[in-house]
Amino acid sequence: MIETPYLLFLGDAPDQLAAKVAQGIKDWRPENAVGQFRLEGCKADVGLADMTLAEARAAGARTLVIGVANRGGYISSAWKEVLIKALEMGFDLASGLHNLLRDEGDLVAASQTHGGTLHDVRVPSVGYPIANGVKRRGKRVLAVGTDCSVGKMYTALALDDAMRRRGMKSTFRATGQTGILITGHGVPLDAVVADFMAGSVEYLTPDNDEDHWDIIEGQGSLFHVSYSGVTLALIHGGQPDALILSHEPSRPHMRGLPGHALPSLERLRDTALPLARVANPDCQVVGVSVNTQHMPEDEALRYLAEVEQRIGLPAVDPFRQGADRLADALAAL
Amino acid sequence: MIETPYLLFLGDAPDQLAAKVAQGIKDWRPENAVGQFRLEGCKADVGLADMTLAEARAAGARTLVIGVANRGGYISSAWKEVLIKALEMGFDLASGLHNLLRDEGDLVAASQTHGGTLHDVRVPSVGYPIANGVKRRGKRVLAVGTDCSVGKMYTALALDDAMRRRGMKSTFRATGQTGILITGHGVPLDAVVADFMAGSVEYLTPDNDEDHWDIIEGQGSLFHVSYSGVTLALIHGGQPDALILSHEPSRPHMRGLPGHALPSLERLRDTALPLARVANPDCQVVGVSVNTQHMPEDEALRYLAEVEQRIGLPAVDPFRQGADRLADALAAL
Repeated sequence: MIETPYLLFLGDAPDQLAAKVAQGIKDWRPENAVGQFRLEGCKADVGLADMTLAEARAAGARTLVIGVANRGGYISSAWKEVLIKALEMGFDLASGLHNLLRDEGDLVAASQTHGGTLHDVRVPSVGYPIANGVKRRGKRVLAVGTDCSVGKMYTALALDDAMRRRGMKSTFRATGQTGILITGHGVPLDAVVADFMAGSVEYLTPDNDEDHWDIIEGQGSLFHVSYSGVTLALIHGGQPDALILSHEPSRPHMRGLPGHALPSLERLRDTALPLARVANPDCQVVGVSVNTQHMPEDEALRYLAEVEQRIGLPAVDPFRQGADRLADALAAL
Repeated sequence: MIETPYLLFLGDAPDQLAAKVAQGIKDWRPENAVGQFRLEGCKADVGLADMTLAEARAAGARTLVIGVANRGGYISSAWKEVLIKALEMGFDLASGLHNLLRDEGDLVAASQTHGGTLHDVRVPSVGYPIANGVKRRGKRVLAVGTDCSVGKMYTALALDDAMRRRGMKSTFRATGQTGILITGHGVPLDAVVADFMAGSVEYLTPDNDEDHWDIIEGQGSLFHVSYSGVTLALIHGGQPDALILSHEPSRPHMRGLPGHALPSLERLRDTALPLARVANPDCQVVGVSVNTQHMPEDEALRYLAEVEQRIGLPAVDPFRQGADRLADALAAL
């Protein structure tokens, strides 16, 4: 659990895309951030007030979050100065970088001297149990993709937003670094030891009110040979009541796997649903989420209408249209 | 890679079953063991010559293998004395115990003083790559189970034995602790970090001669919610050309999961084969392996005949009948 609110560290981000973690926090949990901190030459701006460390502390900030990806994932000396000063001023630090805060001796020393916590969200901090498969109270929904990186996290966050706005009980359950930094908690599933993957998802989505929905962030794809095991652990540990099929129609092949074709949405449905029913016999596929960013608006709308006709379920691009129709489908379940 | 031959340490095993790792080495790789070492009160005997450490060294033994499971997986002081003496005499140590040799200060000290290696086969010692899904040369076969612990390792070892006897090129590829100790190498798949599971299986089963078979040790089950992700990583990382369906007909429910029914062999086939074809479109199901240990011989034979009729593929109990008919099926592929 990372303490909020945050000050978002954008460092010397070379462009806006490098600050996508900070942007995600600003877009989805604006109440979690009091401002942004930029070094000279920073080319990113997530639209929050620029603050010094002292100003942010005065505004209540508890944690300095590294909201920027850098080349190679390492922590430069230009950053170090700010991070150490932040620890001296009483901040905790949180990072999803490949190189860990805890492996930097000067940060460890400063955190021990000043009592701050170093959160490396890329690695687990909990000893997860082995999954027991016992049915839990409350409802769960999971997006499964024809490929990796087709918009499953975005779909989940948009769905959470739509459900909250209409007063449904929902919680976004992060399973990756960006999602964990956005919400302050979650499981870094790709870094969990094999035997404990499904158990970590059970841990993440415990018993809850009967009318509460856990919106579980998807990972990988059953059809992506590098990561499919992670996806199946998510399906079996999450025991979802509802699946959403996610797709990005412009891919020439599976991400990073030339020669591996994407499955159709029908094949994804017919593969994922029987597997999900091993853990939850009542599971249903309730809708389709399509990432149409590479299509003009009219083509995107035609594509969505065609998918909706073919699959017989609501098909939306949550970025263009929001996820209200997916929330409707869950409410009707 | 653990250096052979071994001296098998049976310690103070309370019964024969506790020495099943040692028994596995004796049964499947007798050429890897020069003898057994037993403490006073040991109730197990794998049928090798009892030797002192000095006698075993003189007979060429390189590694003292802990071939016994103890309560709680910890290393008792009665054992310690022998293990330290073995290091002093130039042995390496190998263990699949839950508690690691490397966490025992006195063993670490003795290994550093005397130059011996501590092999903890329960944890990976290699930085595995992310799977790339590229088709590899040579053939691979994998047993997939209706449940965990239905005899997949036994099937693989029996198949390897049958194939070697007829001069086929084959290598048993261990993915669990017992298999690794039997053969001296492998991947402890259940302890690999999620993102690298499929890559570790690619690493384990590299390019080989076109007529060579890797016989990959199966793990878990697609239908066991605690471990299914491990199984799918094995299917996609192993890109098998052939699957064998494994079953134990007397189970009232999935191992450790009351209320979770076992799938039929047909359902296992219809689930596993399409998933395997994601990684290798030419994959075929070639046979069925049934663990009939809880049936009298005549009932077992009737059951196997019935399965063979129903599934239309050779169905054998490798323990009772050997795996020659499965080897025939692979040779015919």
